[in-house]
Amino acid sequence: MANNAEPLERLIDQFSRFPGIGRKGATRMAYQVMGMSDAEVLELSSAIRDAKARLHRCKCCQNFTESDLCSICSSPKRDRSVICVVESPRDVTAIERTREYNGMYHVLHGLISPMDGIGADQLCVKELLARLGTGEVKEVIMATSPTVEGEATAMYLAKLVKPLGVKATRLAYGLPVGSSLEYADETTLYRAISGRGEL
Amino acid sequence: MANNAEPLERLIDQFSRFPGIGRKGATRMAYQVMGMSDAEVLELSSAIRDAKARLHRCKCCQNFTESDLCSICSSPKRDRSVICVVESPRDVTAIERTREYNGMYHVLHGLISPMDGIGADQLCVKELLARLGTGEVKEVIMATSPTVEGEATAMYLAKLVKPLGVKATRLAYGLPVGSSLEYADETTLYRAISGRGEL
Repeated sequence: MANNAEPLERLIDQFSRFPGIGRKGATRMAYQVMGMSDAEVLELSSAIRDAKARLHRCKCCQNFTESDLCSICSSPKRDRSVICVVESPRDVTAIERTREYNGMYHVLHGLISPMDGIGADQLCVKELLARLGTGEVKEVIMATSPTVEGEATAMYLAKLVKPLGVKATRLAYGLPVGSSLEYADETTLYRAISGRGEL
Repeated sequence: MANNAEPLERLIDQFSRFPGIGRKGATRMAYQVMGMSDAEVLELSSAIRDAKARLHRCKCCQNFTESDLCSICSSPKRDRSVICVVESPRDVTAIERTREYNGMYHVLHGLISPMDGIGADQLCVKELLARLGTGEVKEVIMATSPTVEGEATAMYLAKLVKPLGVKATRLAYGLPVGSSLEYADETTLYRAISGRGEL
């Protein structure tokens, strides 16, 4: 088999590099490719090259875009006094889906994680600070995940942002909507109690 | 977002067509691609095109190969009197890994499944029958999965093969090696008892 299946082995290797895809999943995917029409295979391989070739980082918020500035950064309708700091472009999409936020974004492209050897200098932190100098921005919302790395990054950024006269805020902690109270962990429940609001 | 992220959306669409990969997994994969170097992206997209362009079905066993005949069909060391019939090329790899089988293979590229509208004419059945005419083949091992579709396909093929004077056999049923007897389902346990062998 070995020599004859070489292009297939190469493809399986490629697929198994994706996060969450093991050897078996990659094999299934490779055989799926073998079952596609030539046109479908071309579509898939060009979609991969296109995404990488045509998209780059917005020079303002660092989200992916095809232009110099992304659609949010170039929109005159957005509120330029608030910047929401997120880990990745996925988080921008998630927050946009709520249709409740009308400010700007800043994508860090990662979180501070000493365990993985990722420090603040590997994230888009200086690009964020560069946006705060003009006095236009009044508030920076730390919208990183409520994990150890997310909290550490939020705390670190807050310390840099506050001396510039900009308010640093954090997303609220509490019970996820639709969840059952009995399944909430102690920390979440404690946070929900201490952050309670008046009705 | 919509217009600017268009190449990304296209890529996510493409990835989410793979079996077992949902929208979220496809999104993670797409962002993984965005984080790759240009060389890595080229490697991935060409691996996809290559596998499809360079591999085709062996004209004898229907497994994927780069040549006219696959390495097993063209090997003088293999026993041409036995053909092991399997659902997919993956199964060939699995059986080859046992290093216990020295016969030939035949890949059906599917199983009979009336629920999915797949009949025998969509499988490589006539190619199998064409190999049995010469009298060289003495036995056909039905190595399809012990599922409803696998059993139905094995039974169907056995009926076609036997009138040609070829022995049709089926893989043994029983307890999987290393498993615990208490977790075996009734059917497997019944099969293991009725198929018991002398020590």
